[in-house]
Amino acid sequence: MGQPIEIICVGNELLIGMVVNTNSQWLSRRITALGLSVNRITTIGDDVDQIAQALREALKRKPQFVFMTGGLGPTFDDKTLEGTAKALKLPLQTHDKALKLVRQTYRRYEEEGRIEKEVELTPPRMKMAKLPKGAEPLPNPVGTAPGVQLRHEGTTVIALPGVPTEMKAIFDESVMPVLRRVAGNLTFYETSIDVTGVMESEIAPLIDRTMHDSPYVYIKSHPSHTGEGKPRLALHLSTTASDSTTAKNRVGKALMQITELIQTKGGKTRPITEEEVSQA
Amino acid sequence: MGQPIEIICVGNELLIGMVVNTNSQWLSRRITALGLSVNRITTIGDDVDQIAQALREALKRKPQFVFMTGGLGPTFDDKTLEGTAKALKLPLQTHDKALKLVRQTYRRYEEEGRIEKEVELTPPRMKMAKLPKGAEPLPNPVGTAPGVQLRHEGTTVIALPGVPTEMKAIFDESVMPVLRRVAGNLTFYETSIDVTGVMESEIAPLIDRTMHDSPYVYIKSHPSHTGEGKPRLALHLSTTASDSTTAKNRVGKALMQITELIQTKGGKTRPITEEEVSQA
Repeated sequence: MGQPIEIICVGNELLIGMVVNTNSQWLSRRITALGLSVNRITTIGDDVDQIAQALREALKRKPQFVFMTGGLGPTFDDKTLEGTAKALKLPLQTHDKALKLVRQTYRRYEEEGRIEKEVELTPPRMKMAKLPKGAEPLPNPVGTAPGVQLRHEGTTVIALPGVPTEMKAIFDESVMPVLRRVAGNLTFYETSIDVTGVMESEIAPLIDRTMHDSPYVYIKSHPSHTGEGKPRLALHLSTTASDSTTAKNRVGKALMQITELIQTKGGKTRPITEEEVSQA
Repeated sequence: MGQPIEIICVGNELLIGMVVNTNSQWLSRRITALGLSVNRITTIGDDVDQIAQALREALKRKPQFVFMTGGLGPTFDDKTLEGTAKALKLPLQTHDKALKLVRQTYRRYEEEGRIEKEVELTPPRMKMAKLPKGAEPLPNPVGTAPGVQLRHEGTTVIALPGVPTEMKAIFDESVMPVLRRVAGNLTFYETSIDVTGVMESEIAPLIDRTMHDSPYVYIKSHPSHTGEGKPRLALHLSTTASDSTTAKNRVGKALMQITELIQTKGGKTRPITEEEVSQA
């Protein structure tokens, strides 16, 4: 499965609960679908020291990738690159290719009539092209601020904008090819079943037994309350394997075992979804 | 504003992107509405060492509160209390009051016909009453696993279940009274305006100027792309003050200034919502 991956989300709007963090969920889903593993998500504010501290802490855990989201735009509180530079003790420098990308975008906006003014690279616009020394920009096909990629020892740090459409566009265009290479043929497979008539506390030992017999399958129970107060829960079974047949067979075997065990306790099961999220 | 607050969310389902982390958003919103500040949210998996490490790291930053969500249930992968005990080098002990709460809940389930079997405290059920030494249970009015509260040096650690209805019920019943005392009369006030016709990069210096003149008001811009590709963004202004009149006046002054500045650049503004989230 390779080394783990960390995500750092930057933005006061997340810390005051103004916005739900759908970016980290989208990234985790994409990364997991390739068979790779996210092992920590950290959310911090628009503060250079907090960003630098969170990144330094993540790097100490030697992840293969750190994805950062948010804080790449032109405003004063877009501080991700400054925080990254501070964490890695690198100077911020105007990057020729990044500057070209930013200039091209404003020129396109002008041509498309989205802005009426002359293209001028004001300091806030220049700021988006100031990268930590050694970093490379990743083109932003739907917005202004480029993504940023840099290597630090064994880790690749990739900073993406916080605007979801921009984050997704850069990820799919520039990051997926890299992750696919790293993931090779790894496949993530999962399925969920709905269980009624048995309490979560009764299912706990059944899960233990099934996971003992299927050590590569991870089973997690999620209680869901029905209006009537009857016990109901969802069981989620998942695995990562080097090919999709192995992954499906593993999950299938565990699914049969846990279903039988639940029935012997008087419970009922019903499939919820079956979805292969491979190379999504 | 007192010391900051941290949130630690425990659950593999969050790291694989199966679930959006609405718990941290709900908690952040509640805490912010009281005038208190969340300064970090950490999400980790169902793993004793990861939980212990994340909690130790949080405690080093000396927060006033650490809220943990998830991992309190009866299944093998509910490891929050074990991780907490490990972080603080405390033994896990069956807590009389917690055991009574768990037993009462199963007795009620039986009376309500939700479970048909005799009430018996199986090991998975007993597990929910095993707390780190010195901790106190917080009654769970809508589920089985009690919340858990303990003090460590200057920090209060509060663990809540991951099921949103249970987390919210325990928070509102047992945690809000404590937070209100800590917050005193602090009030959070915010407003948002919709801005069209000006690029984010042009607004950046206007925000700088306004925040310079209103140092207690925080202004953040959130670009939102319209279908037509015209520049559009939301500006969010917020402050925390010791009374609601001061908070409103501060935000009102900054709002007037930034609106005027945007109009001089040819932009248009429109209020989005105005909502006083005080003592919510």
